[in-house]
Order: sequence, then C-alpha cells, then structure tokens
Amino acid sequence: MTQHIEDRLAALGLQLPPVPKPIGNYVAGVAVGNLLFMSGIGPRRPEGGVVAGRLGESMDIEQGYQAAQLVALNMLANIRSVIGSLDRIERVVKVLGMVNCTPAFNDMPKVINGFSDLFVQLLGEERGRGARSAVGMASLPNQIAVEVEMVLQISA
Amino acid sequence: MTQHIEDRLAALGLQLPPVPKPIGNYVAGVAVGNLLFMSGIGPRRPEGGVVAGRLGESMDIEQGYQAAQLVALNMLANIRSVIGSLDRIERVVKVLGMVNCTPAFNDMPKVINGFSDLFVQLLGEERGRGARSAVGMASLPNQIAVEVEMVLQISA
Amino acid sequence: MTQHIEDRLAALGLQLPPVPKPIGNYVAGVAVGNLLFMSGIGPRRPEGGVVAGRLGESMDIEQGYQAAQLVALNMLANIRSVIGSLDRIERVVKVLGMVNCTPAFNDMPKVINGFSDLFVQLLGEERGRGARSAVGMASLPNQIAVEVEMVLQISA
Repeated sequence: MTQHIEDRLAALGLQLPPVPKPIGNYVAGVAVGNLLFMSGIGPRRPEGGVVAGRLGESMDIEQGYQAAQLVALNMLANIRSVIGSLDRIERVVKVLGMVNCTPAFNDMPKVINGFSDLFVQLLGEERGRGARSAVGMASLPNQIAVEVEMVLQISA
Repeated sequence: MTQHIEDRLAALGLQLPPVPKPIGNYVAGVAVGNLLFMSGIGPRRPEGGVVAGRLGESMDIEQGYQAAQLVALNMLANIRSVIGSLDRIERVVKVLGMVNCTPAFNDMPKVINGFSDLFVQLLGEERGRGARSAVGMASLPNQIAVEVEMVLQISA
Repeated sequence: MTQHIEDRLAALGLQLPPVPKPIGNYVAGVAVGNLLFMSGIGPRRPEGGVVAGRLGESMDIEQGYQAAQLVALNMLANIRSVIGSLDRIERVVKVLGMVNCTPAFNDMPKVINGFSDLFVQLLGEERGRGARSAVGMASLPNQIAVEVEMVLQISA
C-alpha cells in the first residue's frame, strides 16, 4: 500500500473538509513519540453546520453510520493538520466512539462502523482496524449525533 | 509472584471464557511498544449471552460487581488472544469502567471494583492496581450492564 | 517559563487541596516512560464534600466552569502525589472532560474550559493546551457535576 492516502480518499469520491476550529481551550491533537492522541470531533458538514440528532429517536442506524463517516473525514482533516501528511499514519490504535442516543438504543457498534469502515478502506485491515469502544452518551456538545476520539501510531 | 497468572486464576476457581468475537469493525487490542490498548468488552457469559441490565433499576450493586468480574474474565481472554500469554502483563495502567445506570445511581466505583479486584488478586497490588475512571453511561450496546476498556504495560 | 508551577498557582491566589483518597480499588495515576495516565477525579472541596449537581438542571455554565476549575486543582494535587513535583510536567497530552448533564445540555466545552484554562495559565499555551473531548454523562459517582481524566507527558 504505497498509494498516498489522499489518493485513496479521492478514489472513493471523498475529500477532506476544512479543518474544524476547536470549540474550547484545546488543540486538535498531540503527538508524543510515535503515539498521536486526537481530540474528540463531531460530524461537521463541509458547508458548515453539524449533523445533530439522537439515535433511537430522531435518527436511524443508517443516518448514524453516515454521520460517523463524516466524523472520520473531519478526523482525517484534523490529523493532517497536526502531523502534516496522512501518509505518516502507521496504524489505528484505539477508537472511542460516542453515540448520542436513547437508553433503549442497542446498536452503537453499527453506527461507529461508519467511522471504522473508512479507516479500514483507506489503510487496509492490518493498519486500519484498531481497538475500539462504542458507547451511548447522555448528550454531546450542540446535540451532535456522534463524537469520536482516537489514538494512532505514527511514523517520524 | 513468579506463579503463572493462569494458575492463579485456576486457584481462584475461575477460568477464561472463549474469546468474544468483536461486534464491529475492530480488533480486541493493539500493542504499541510496551503499551497495550484494549477494546471495550462487556459481561459475556461463557455459555453465551450477556448480562444485560441497568444499575439503579433492574440490578443492584452486588449484581453489578459480579457483572464487572465477568467483564474482567472476558478482558483477560482478549488480552491472551492479543499478546499470547497473560504472563506478559507488566501492570495495569488505566481502566475506564462504564456502568449502564440511571441518573440517580451513585456507586459506579463499587461496581467497577468487581473488575479491579480480580486484576489485583491476579497481579498483586503493585501491578494490578492502575489509574481508573468509573462513570455512568446513558446506554451500552445490547443493554449490557458494564463495559470496560483498558491500557496495560506489557513486556516484550 | 522557569518559574515553579506551584509559585504560579500561588500567584493566581490558588492552592492545592489535600490529596483525595481513591474511592475504589485504584491509584491516582500511573507513569509508563514519559506518559502519565491519571485517574478520573471530581470537584472535591478542600474543606470536604464535593460539588454535586447537574448542568442544565441544578447548575448553570458558570457554576460548572468553577467546578471544573476545582477538578483541575484536585488533579494537580494528584499529579504531584504521583510524580513528586508539578515541575516534571512537560505538557498536557489528552483530557477527557465528563459533564453530568441533561440530554438537552449543549455546552460541555464551556464547562470543561474551567479545567483547561487553569492548565494553560500554569503551563502556557504551548504546553498547557492538549487534545480534548468534553462530553455529557448519564451520571457520575456521588452526583458530582464534573469528572476529568487525563494523559500528560512528563520528564524523567
């Protein structure tokens, strides 16, 4: 897999959104050695605005999946802004997928697959599939449907 | 403590369940150097099925404690599947214990002790007691009562 | 910034509270190499007791901000107890800010800024501003309003 990650993105018909501005006193990510810790980010639309909603109430699994894919694109934009190039990603280490949902909702894993599937498509199974938790949150900032934070292994 | 961890487990009358299959596009754990990042896992019963329920509603603290111990056994099975032997565990670094509970529930720490106590019994206080958070979740996949993710230090 | 962190704290009119005792089978923090993983901690008052409450219900944003600053002071006390001196902090790596709030609450980032702003005041923007997520929880132990866990980079 010597192809550039951004070429693979383009081949999937996808492109990186503008880098979102942090909504508080923090930065998009911090690298320590070969570990990159990325801030939580939501489904920010390239044209502005966010995907707001609550799984099990105002959104179904497929809509949640699409929102999680949008989160992945925002995450990739953030990663590039922190380390300069997506080609420095060695592998996905750990994903924490947080779903805004009702107490009765069961399918956080299916929703967060929208995030994970894109990383696997871009990086391959070996490097794109990390450890993960996918859980239900009482609420997320601005009622966003999904928020994800992650740890990656990067090259120097 | 040169005794094998699995011998200590057996001496406690406990055994590792079959390795649970991830319920999404992820793997059980990823090691980077001497850090092992483990996916969230729930109280999967060895005979199949999960402990479902909600603390403060359909389950009491003792039932939650037992569920958290079952999570620990599933976690150990997962750790062994990723690094080959439990004897490579150097120490528990960080635990995030997530309890499916009502807004009025106060005792997440007592529930998650069911997870932590087993690691301390197996590894001793020095190595088995890590940093931890124990918090209440709006919901967890398939209504499981407890989910835990963790970071460990491992030897080469 | 060669000034000692505790002198900067004093200059802000702040002081570290007594070290809180863990409320379960865990320790305040664990260092692995240059990474320090800190347990979740809440807004424990120096005189005893905690700031309990729920954002969007019994507390407003400013009260939440103050609670999050109190969490930061408890965190600093914990960090010092684990690594001996706050001057060993190289930088904030990752913050997970958890806000006890109603489903309708939107402003977790403004609340958690009470935590982040103090670290930035003490360490400067370069070292004090880390990656972060700020999210809403169904409930927290003993109804505390805010809980934060974090990862820091430390010097030997």
